[in-house]
Amino acid sequence: MEIGDIPLYMQELGTQARAAASQIASAPCEQKNRALLATVGQLTQRREELLKCNREDMENARRNRLDDHLIDRLQLTGERLDAMINGIAQVASLPDPVGTVEKMSTVAGGFQVGKMRVPLGVIGIIYESRPNVTAEAASLCLKAGNAVILRGGKEAIGSNRVIASCFRQGLDSCGLAADTTTLVQTTDRAAVGEMITMSESIDVIVPRGGRALIERISQNARVPVIKHLDGICHVYIDQSADHDKAQGIAFNAKTQRYGTCNTMETLLVHKEVAAALLPGLARLYKQEGVQLRGCNKTCALLADQEVTAATEQDWHTEYLAPVLAVRIVDSFEQAVDHINSCGSHHTDAIVTENYTLSRRFLREVDSSSVMVNASTRLADGYEYGLGAEIGISTDKIHARGPVGLEGLTSQKYVVLGDGHIRT
Amino acid sequence: MEIGDIPLYMQELGTQARAAASQIASAPCEQKNRALLATVGQLTQRREELLKCNREDMENARRNRLDDHLIDRLQLTGERLDAMINGIAQVASLPDPVGTVEKMSTVAGGFQVGKMRVPLGVIGIIYESRPNVTAEAASLCLKAGNAVILRGGKEAIGSNRVIASCFRQGLDSCGLAADTTTLVQTTDRAAVGEMITMSESIDVIVPRGGRALIERISQNARVPVIKHLDGICHVYIDQSADHDKAQGIAFNAKTQRYGTCNTMETLLVHKEVAAALLPGLARLYKQEGVQLRGCNKTCALLADQEVTAATEQDWHTEYLAPVLAVRIVDSFEQAVDHINSCGSHHTDAIVTENYTLSRRFLREVDSSSVMVNASTRLADGYEYGLGAEIGISTDKIHARGPVGLEGLTSQKYVVLGDGHIRT
Repeated sequence: MEIGDIPLYMQELGTQARAAASQIASAPCEQKNRALLATVGQLTQRREELLKCNREDMENARRNRLDDHLIDRLQLTGERLDAMINGIAQVASLPDPVGTVEKMSTVAGGFQVGKMRVPLGVIGIIYESRPNVTAEAASLCLKAGNAVILRGGKEAIGSNRVIASCFRQGLDSCGLAADTTTLVQTTDRAAVGEMITMSESIDVIVPRGGRALIERISQNARVPVIKHLDGICHVYIDQSADHDKAQGIAFNAKTQRYGTCNTMETLLVHKEVAAALLPGLARLYKQEGVQLRGCNKTCALLADQEVTAATEQDWHTEYLAPVLAVRIVDSFEQAVDHINSCGSHHTDAIVTENYTLSRRFLREVDSSSVMVNASTRLADGYEYGLGAEIGISTDKIHARGPVGLEGLTSQKYVVLGDGHIRT
Repeated sequence: MEIGDIPLYMQELGTQARAAASQIASAPCEQKNRALLATVGQLTQRREELLKCNREDMENARRNRLDDHLIDRLQLTGERLDAMINGIAQVASLPDPVGTVEKMSTVAGGFQVGKMRVPLGVIGIIYESRPNVTAEAASLCLKAGNAVILRGGKEAIGSNRVIASCFRQGLDSCGLAADTTTLVQTTDRAAVGEMITMSESIDVIVPRGGRALIERISQNARVPVIKHLDGICHVYIDQSADHDKAQGIAFNAKTQRYGTCNTMETLLVHKEVAAALLPGLARLYKQEGVQLRGCNKTCALLADQEVTAATEQDWHTEYLAPVLAVRIVDSFEQAVDHINSCGSHHTDAIVTENYTLSRRFLREVDSSSVMVNASTRLADGYEYGLGAEIGISTDKIHARGPVGLEGLTSQKYVVLGDGHIRT
């Protein structure tokens, strides 16, 4: 779509979304769920149209010589489409966070004070090629009582238009404002620049994509941003670790999937158990094709295996690939220092049978998820029982770790009195 | 103090504060409390020195022709100093939020997930003339396990230096890093500009002061800001209100104190009870010297009293003075619309005996505190039982309403497994 005046167009979208937000904020749970299920109906009905638009997006992407892995992310296979549609139905089945009152208690003044969960308002999502993000973000925002402005990648615009249109029809058919789900129709980059400064009409921006996208947005935004940066995750095998648990966790955290943010990138091993554990682990990694980059002690210990010497840079790298940095440490304290100074405060685990060290690790490691005897790959909204997630926040403000429906809400104070005044 | 290179100086403060933050974050509650009480001891010992520095600050302020109300805020009378010192001791007696684990439960995968409260890290406070803010902010940040960088007004620099020095000695005497409490020693404005962009070393900025200060900071910050903007608060007297409660609350919310953000600025009255309630209320306000600005219907109803006609601007004004805007509304819905569109989303109250309308008001009014049958003046950290507050946030992200110790913390996920991996 050709839009002449981008700032004016974006301001209009913002005004419409703000109006929709005040309606969806107080919509009953049952009505929101009906709209989600009506959207499922629309998508099922328009399945062929969506697949056709997606094929056109893919053809355009090939013509524009997009990277193969981006084209793969763009594709909606039948299976991916089914998963996307099921995901919307699942969000309908989650409990509604809005209106929940917590910590209601009677204070010294004799009145009651509690905190009620309320929607954030209008959420802006800026993302790249995967069209299923459109459905995930739209359904989570709707369920949490927010309006959403979606700015997807230009390569997926055809697919995104059909998906957004299904949401708008679903909303409309249940008496809710279609503008609750708004797709930015222009692929002009200026729309993003406008969006991240619209603090009157957007309450929070959630960027989903690579580090470059997120940093660019954070640096220029005038609207609060929920960021999801690198995942340089660690497993530390303590002196007192159970060897079976250590092997299982260290293997799973690296090899269960390589390209995810909660994959282990550095393995730390206490010097007292390195000789007993590392050679066997190294063989397991080799079978999976994982390359090792070791500290001096690791290289010496594994002299008969193919281990590259790690450089300082390796301790700060998110490989997202079958590569693993390995360091032998002298103590628990050195491991914690390494994690806090080289890591990205995402997800870190200790393997130990020592009660006191398990408690210290939980307390001293400054990451959004800290784990004892569990694989970093478990840091995920579904695994944590949140039902779904819109991303994993590496911020400290507002939401930290996997962000589900609750992370898309705020809390206000509610005060119940009986004529109470201040004296 | 003359500092040549402001950016370099500020970066150094930031690096020192970051190092102190990682120590104070895991300091036991008992050690933090001892440091607070040692600070109380220091301040008691250096009382005369502080009062002398404060008198010098006042003399300089008079010489620089500072406004009288700013000079008043600057003054540390004996009574104010006692209150300040008692405040620090009170913070020591509050429960420590750090380490609290909430919602620990076993998820489908068989491991346990919970959320642990953790400090935010380094907090930057930018404020104006009141030196007691130095003590309030320093004690709350310390107790919540954060380091703080304090940038007070230049007019209070002498007083602030003594107060900060007492905190640093208190910390040091208990084996904690003095840099946990850092006062910016230069009064050069460039220091503020530097501070709000130091995202590597400051985790959140809390500005305390007038709207102009807060807006300037928010517009230029690269660090998240917890904002406290206007308080345009409303009391809506519903058709079904108990008349005694209505009169008590409407009188208290306006007249108990004029200059505070939770003071009522607009009174909304349902048309069915206006004739019964407004004339009596108007007489009470007149006795207190409160000027009324009324809508057409209010002016007609109170024709025999001195009521000025309100302009559109009046519905959007935070008077902070003995002035009150009064509007007669046709319905509950009109009152809620007025509050949501003209208010500042700070604190709003309904007076009603109607069960359904009380529930709707709590749900539909989008403010940081919503109240039934209580005075807006009760919106306060002390009244809410938080023990103390660092301000009242009008933001939706992170903290909303009075911000106490909990608002100065974040939460991280803790995962307890027994060798659990992802399958």
